[in-house]
Amino acid sequence: MRIDLNSDLGEGFGPWNMGNDAQMLSIVTSANIACGGHASDPETMFRTLELARDNGVCVGAHPGYNDLIGFGRRVIPMSPAEIGRMCAAQIGALIGIAAQVGVPVTYVKPHGALGNLAARDRDVADAIVTAVQKIDPELAILAISGTQSEHAARAANAPVFSEIFADRGYLSSGQLVPRDQDGAMIHDAAAAADRLVSFLESGLMPVIDGDPIKLAAQSICVHGDTAGAVDMAREIRTRLTAQGVQIASFARQ
Amino acid sequence: MRIDLNSDLGEGFGPWNMGNDAQMLSIVTSANIACGGHASDPETMFRTLELARDNGVCVGAHPGYNDLIGFGRRVIPMSPAEIGRMCAAQIGALIGIAAQVGVPVTYVKPHGALGNLAARDRDVADAIVTAVQKIDPELAILAISGTQSEHAARAANAPVFSEIFADRGYLSSGQLVPRDQDGAMIHDAAAAADRLVSFLESGLMPVIDGDPIKLAAQSICVHGDTAGAVDMAREIRTRLTAQGVQIASFARQ
Amino acid sequence: MRIDLNSDLGEGFGPWNMGNDAQMLSIVTSANIACGGHASDPETMFRTLELARDNGVCVGAHPGYNDLIGFGRRVIPMSPAEIGRMCAAQIGALIGIAAQVGVPVTYVKPHGALGNLAARDRDVADAIVTAVQKIDPELAILAISGTQSEHAARAANAPVFSEIFADRGYLSSGQLVPRDQDGAMIHDAAAAADRLVSFLESGLMPVIDGDPIKLAAQSICVHGDTAGAVDMAREIRTRLTAQGVQIASFARQ
Amino acid sequence: MRIDLNSDLGEGFGPWNMGNDAQMLSIVTSANIACGGHASDPETMFRTLELARDNGVCVGAHPGYNDLIGFGRRVIPMSPAEIGRMCAAQIGALIGIAAQVGVPVTYVKPHGALGNLAARDRDVADAIVTAVQKIDPELAILAISGTQSEHAARAANAPVFSEIFADRGYLSSGQLVPRDQDGAMIHDAAAAADRLVSFLESGLMPVIDGDPIKLAAQSICVHGDTAGAVDMAREIRTRLTAQGVQIASFARQ
Repeated sequence: MRIDLNSDLGEGFGPWNMGNDAQMLSIVTSANIACGGHASDPETMFRTLELARDNGVCVGAHPGYNDLIGFGRRVIPMSPAEIGRMCAAQIGALIGIAAQVGVPVTYVKPHGALGNLAARDRDVADAIVTAVQKIDPELAILAISGTQSEHAARAANAPVFSEIFADRGYLSSGQLVPRDQDGAMIHDAAAAADRLVSFLESGLMPVIDGDPIKLAAQSICVHGDTAGAVDMAREIRTRLTAQGVQIASFARQ
Repeated sequence: MRIDLNSDLGEGFGPWNMGNDAQMLSIVTSANIACGGHASDPETMFRTLELARDNGVCVGAHPGYNDLIGFGRRVIPMSPAEIGRMCAAQIGALIGIAAQVGVPVTYVKPHGALGNLAARDRDVADAIVTAVQKIDPELAILAISGTQSEHAARAANAPVFSEIFADRGYLSSGQLVPRDQDGAMIHDAAAAADRLVSFLESGLMPVIDGDPIKLAAQSICVHGDTAGAVDMAREIRTRLTAQGVQIASFARQ
Repeated sequence: MRIDLNSDLGEGFGPWNMGNDAQMLSIVTSANIACGGHASDPETMFRTLELARDNGVCVGAHPGYNDLIGFGRRVIPMSPAEIGRMCAAQIGALIGIAAQVGVPVTYVKPHGALGNLAARDRDVADAIVTAVQKIDPELAILAISGTQSEHAARAANAPVFSEIFADRGYLSSGQLVPRDQDGAMIHDAAAAADRLVSFLESGLMPVIDGDPIKLAAQSICVHGDTAGAVDMAREIRTRLTAQGVQIASFARQ
Repeated sequence: MRIDLNSDLGEGFGPWNMGNDAQMLSIVTSANIACGGHASDPETMFRTLELARDNGVCVGAHPGYNDLIGFGRRVIPMSPAEIGRMCAAQIGALIGIAAQVGVPVTYVKPHGALGNLAARDRDVADAIVTAVQKIDPELAILAISGTQSEHAARAANAPVFSEIFADRGYLSSGQLVPRDQDGAMIHDAAAAADRLVSFLESGLMPVIDGDPIKLAAQSICVHGDTAGAVDMAREIRTRLTAQGVQIASFARQ
């Protein structure tokens, strides 16, 4: 059993920080690094890329809407083609800085409202995959398991990896339990880790409204924007490792 | 005799235009395209790159200070290393969009206050050249002839081309005549073209304060931000061509 | 018969211009001046306010979404309360600059997608009216005739004036003919002026799908973002004046 | 003996926080609130103003260079007149939001590099004072004691208050000890408080290079951007109060 742990990182801006990148980069194996859209700037990208390199963590681009104030959590009306180009500029910017640090950018995972839109809107997903492939056909897509992002990448024969969430409940439809319903969040690290080990052994994910469902996943998404989130991520890694799961980047499989 | 004509293009932003890119792209052979620092955004880059491709014009990145309101004409206090990373992010962004259009980015020319600073400050010039080389060692530097930008690129064994200005007077020091002095600007297209042909034949540039000086140049910078500037650029191209000068990009020499 | 002519002005940004403010300010009697949201910056506000003052044109604030790239034409997801505060900051900024020029800001007209949303969404309209009233209860609302913006202002006992469009066709519902339908645009200045005079005499506006409807209006909105638009605005003013209509700001009625 | 305590607050931006505004607003009597230049946005201004109101803290505008990435700590080349207008727009924005909260804005203190420039450059100081006076002649200037900002305000007959720093050493010239010299920072809260009490009793400030100097001050500037800074501010307030100093806003003297 092996799995990747990914997290959104480098989400500061100018003088402002977000989360604890240094701690998270000692836990995860893949870093989704903001590219100047919903967060970050050249210096923030540079510092985060250096930390990722020094921790041997694989680097992905984490493009989002050009909306710092909204942190990329608002849908900005744009055509799929515009979205593809917005992503291309951000991914290119991160690649430009990564070249300064000497690390490759190996995958792309859209952020926030953009990621959610790409998960449910095939045209948007196709536009992002196409834009990424034009930059480099070896750039992988990291998609939420079972979504249009994943389907679009497979249809384009692009490298694709799927992620599940460490701390979110699932419905039998494969969707996440909405945040305002019971069972949406798993707050106990031990319970979260047990569920993940069970999933890795069986390929079946428990749901709150029926029998476990089949999900494919090469990565687990953990959050690091609060002290509690960092603790949970560390606990999950410790427990997975204790149960014999190898934690390693999908990009090096 | 052959020479390149370059111009700063794609310097709109969002709903705003600057100059007449479509006309200029039928005149020049190299387009210095703004990358989102002093001007431009993904859609503006995309449209400009498409126009450049359709006109067979070579594409360079034109990074500038991240200062839209000042249009990159103000020196923003930054260390050379910060400047290098700012340029890397902008060049990367343009490369990301150029990949969507299917054109290569072949050179870099810093804009405005950044270009002037790199011309006189070797540390800044070195930082830009180093950042560019780390992205792609085949990316050329387009430098103002005789400046620190040119020296830095040569010292780094980076590809480098030099430019002279079509409409500016020179001093025997090799510097431009300051704009507030007589002889700073050449307003007559015929006079400008005659001077350029004479220079191409002799390698000697007339100056206002002594004997002509030796200057190396593979490119002539023409402006296109006013209707008069476009007319002058077209007239210069017509006259150079009439006198047997081949107009072709240095990037394809 | 008297009527105000209003236009959106001061919509440049940094080095970029939009439309011909100097010409339009010799035609209109009320200037809706951008406040740094969808366009403008302190210097652009200052120049536009000076021009308005020198032409004796009344000044209104023209707040829009904080979305320069989209020019305020995209709906950015925000709560009504957030919209109210965004408008308050922009109106305050314009008032701050207007104090430098020595002109009062007398009314508020929301821009683009924000104006359209306020026209149909009462909660948004209420939030804007409330925010404006808290700044200064004498600040008027300039609303599209018959919309939620107008209703909200009347309900709050705020000063309110209504506008009709010089060059747009109407439906019997009071709505504008959608731009993709026949009759949406009136391209002939003479026809537009004749229609306006007829409306001013009768209070009845012709529609494309039935009998003329009653509309209240103290202002006519004219556009100035193209050379053709400026010509049409001037022609409309000339024709209205020739037919005895007095052109004067509602703010001075 | 009475004195005001002021601090720079509301310096977050979008999703990002800076310092602990809630704690600092229980300590200080005057809040210098960022206005969207070097930090803040309408929502951040609104939340900070509500907190200030709920704590009975007086509110000042804290304008800075429009340079989020540099947090207003870099000098952006601008003419004094441009600086005045930039400040006017920011102060106006804060006044617009303050009207939503129902608190008056009573003074202005320039931030960071702008404050330092105004302290030493009389033309800049004059431009800021003039811009502020045009908005409201009752708006006070909060100036570093003995600087051009203070002189400019006095010359304009504007209300002016002077501040000293709680934790910085002074030279006999009245300047602060540069940060790279011994004695620049006072790290011990008790020592800082003792020095402040001594100053309040005598009007004389100890310096590191000679006899104590006379300084006028109606306010003490304390910092709150780190946990240690908050602790020091609280300790200073406690000690001043214990020694009979009344802590109260200058704006209500």
